Amino acid sequence: MKATIVTIGDEILIGQIVDTNSNFIAKELDRIGVETYEMISISDDKQHILNTFAQLQNKVDVVIVTGGLGPTKDDVTKKTFCEYFDDELVVNPEVLAHVTELIEGFYKRPISQLNKDQALVPSKCTVLHNKMGTAPGMWMKKENTVFVSLPGVPYEMKYLVENEIIPKIVKEYKRPYIIHKTILTYGQGESLVAERIENWENNLPEFIKLAYLPNPGRVRLRMTARGTDKEVLEKAIEENVQSLDAIIHDIIVGYEENETIETVVGKLLAKQNKTVSTAESCTGGKVASLLASVQGASAYFKGSVVSYATEAKVNVLGVSQDLIDQFSVVSAEVAAAMALNVKNILKTDYAIATTGNAGPSKGDSEAEIGTVFIALATPNGVITEEFNFGQPREKVIDRATIKSLEILQKEILKIVQ
Amino acid sequence: MKATIVTIGDEILIGQIVDTNSNFIAKELDRIGVETYEMISISDDKQHILNTFAQLQNKVDVVIVTGGLGPTKDDVTKKTFCEYFDDELVVNPEVLAHVTELIEGFYKRPISQLNKDQALVPSKCTVLHNKMGTAPGMWMKKENTVFVSLPGVPYEMKYLVENEIIPKIVKEYKRPYIIHKTILTYGQGESLVAERIENWENNLPEFIKLAYLPNPGRVRLRMTARGTDKEVLEKAIEENVQSLDAIIHDIIVGYEENETIETVVGKLLAKQNKTVSTAESCTGGKVASLLASVQGASAYFKGSVVSYATEAKVNVLGVSQDLIDQFSVVSAEVAAAMALNVKNILKTDYAIATTGNAGPSKGDSEAEIGTVFIALATPNGVITEEFNFGQPREKVIDRATIKSLEILQKEILKIVQ
Repeated sequence: MKATIVTIGDEILIGQIVDTNSNFIAKELDRIGVETYEMISISDDKQHILNTFAQLQNKVDVVIVTGGLGPTKDDVTKKTFCEYFDDELVVNPEVLAHVTELIEGFYKRPISQLNKDQALVPSKCTVLHNKMGTAPGMWMKKENTVFVSLPGVPYEMKYLVENEIIPKIVKEYKRPYIIHKTILTYGQGESLVAERIENWENNLPEFIKLAYLPNPGRVRLRMTARGTDKEVLEKAIEENVQSLDAIIHDIIVGYEENETIETVVGKLLAKQNKTVSTAESCTGGKVASLLASVQGASAYFKGSVVSYATEAKVNVLGVSQDLIDQFSVVSAEVAAAMALNVKNILKTDYAIATTGNAGPSKGDSEAEIGTVFIALATPNGVITEEFNFGQPREKVIDRATIKSLEILQKEILKIVQ
Repeated sequence: MKATIVTIGDEILIGQIVDTNSNFIAKELDRIGVETYEMISISDDKQHILNTFAQLQNKVDVVIVTGGLGPTKDDVTKKTFCEYFDDELVVNPEVLAHVTELIEGFYKRPISQLNKDQALVPSKCTVLHNKMGTAPGMWMKKENTVFVSLPGVPYEMKYLVENEIIPKIVKEYKRPYIIHKTILTYGQGESLVAERIENWENNLPEFIKLAYLPNPGRVRLRMTARGTDKEVLEKAIEENVQSLDAIIHDIIVGYEENETIETVVGKLLAKQNKTVSTAESCTGGKVASLLASVQGASAYFKGSVVSYATEAKVNVLGVSQDLIDQFSVVSAEVAAAMALNVKNILKTDYAIATTGNAGPSKGDSEAEIGTVFIALATPNGVITEEFNFGQPREKVIDRATIKSLEILQKEILKIVQ
């Protein structure tokens, strides 16, 4: 079963915003065995939309369209749906009641004609109820292709995909299984890895596809198996992971889960009934904000001291000025003191600390740009590691943030095993 | 002049990564007056690529392809270019010398056949020298359309776009001017704004296009003018901004300069020589991490106390337990105390505090889900505001974060004026 995701809106084409909706939808489709054949971003021009629809007609099973559904004139999607399906707009009473309730009840404003017009939908469409906003989703079928229209506002789109589209596809379509397994390797380049596993790769079964995903310093190998028998796929993936491991065991560092590192770490902490805090300098609170972004974080995340300025390290965290003078603010010693002190102050089992120089110019220290020290205080002591994440600034902050959560994860797993 | 951006790679189609390359390229093209007609993401399948090329042939002037250029087997782009252009791969001596230097000189490894193969390019192509990596860019023309191939690794792609593609397009093509102006309005919904400016909108000249970009709580209005006379366009935009301002002056809060709120606030603070700190509960350090994400933040951002747990509010921030018992942890009173105390502790001119219930379930307070109190301590006292940002959790955190920076911005501007 194939789908194409179409995004309507000039803001994407002129580079004003990055399209993240398509990524979310593709992930959801993949999970239920629907292959995303293409993603297309087009302008909110009627003829452009019509041409795109005609081109996709009967080529894919589902076309999921996001954007172009607001109350104003530049939103042409609904009219275009009518033209494509030779249909007309009619008032949908349920949508009208919902819009009225939202505008008059929640926003306490008199309802306007433009608001009311949001309840206009093509007469032949199945309305997908949008609990999160005023623009309803629409589901319409022509010959072998279903066209679905969703608002472009991310949380409204997500709500409709999770609660309406995915359940409806699961109910109405037969789909194969798609299983991915991504192996993380570290320390060798794409060419070298490819040479080492050439034989293994040539012997993969037809239904398993291999992809190389190179990043500086590491290569991820993604196996994708497609078929109707889930057990066969899982067994084949498992066997090939094992035979791969036999060849490049020295560089395999793990497997990519679909969960973010903060979710994985959060689950581990909750399961172990342990708590964490952070003391952050160069990451500026990003580790804390990732930890806090997870539902139920209050069970294990107590708080953080973002000691961006040196005086905050001394006055709030109680790091001694002597230590800073002796080793400099960007040092393993200061990172360790930050971690131990915040662990004490916030009474947690673990504490992460970061101090470094994110660049682009040097701050309160002579450390090379890109240098970051990460410390982890544990129930048994404190460990520190030094990194250089290069440049730009954004990359240094992001990599230091993820790395510190990975260090925490590794330590918790050590104790568990 | 029109361009289509094509991204090759299953990792985008299965949702493993978000395509940010297309956004970068679109922005660069827009800047020099090239209209991005479509963005398309397709799989790394030869036939799929060939079909896409055929479909774009003579429909756009330039097709910019990213991805599918590494040394391994799943990278089919080069072979597909050869087939489409009826060409064959030949060794390019300059690329070979560069690859050899990079592998043997920089990485200190013996060069392999796969490395050497990166120097193979279609014989008819113009090679674009990739200083940042081993895969060269390629530029090939067929009839009225140029096809450009770039590696998918973002910093290699960016280097080639900025240093090779854009200068080459500027030299070889006549392009119109494209001018955008985005007006930020605040406090009224899309429908209401549209009604108020209906007449103005109907009287816009043909060459100016208006788009509504709604976000919860605010609407951005983007005018786009296209034409050959830059002065005429600029004058028309300027005049229409003024006539628009005369109609909705009460809700216009500024103009989008492509700058984020944290950059704008950072500049204001630096200019006024003022400092800021934060005390965060429900935002979990996100306000701090945005402030710290800006280059040169250490000049005005001192730090933050993320008091996620109630005991952290008491023990670290020194909010009195009595106050919490009396008003609850999610209250204007506690927010105000948090802001005043962190301002004191970190000795800053301003301090932002957030406390709320991000959901999805209730925490240490009985406050309704979505409720957030934001306090701002200033040199003259403290102000607090109450909001309900609804659900989901992600939206509550994001909106509270942006809102608190907006409140700070407004206060600084008050003092400046």
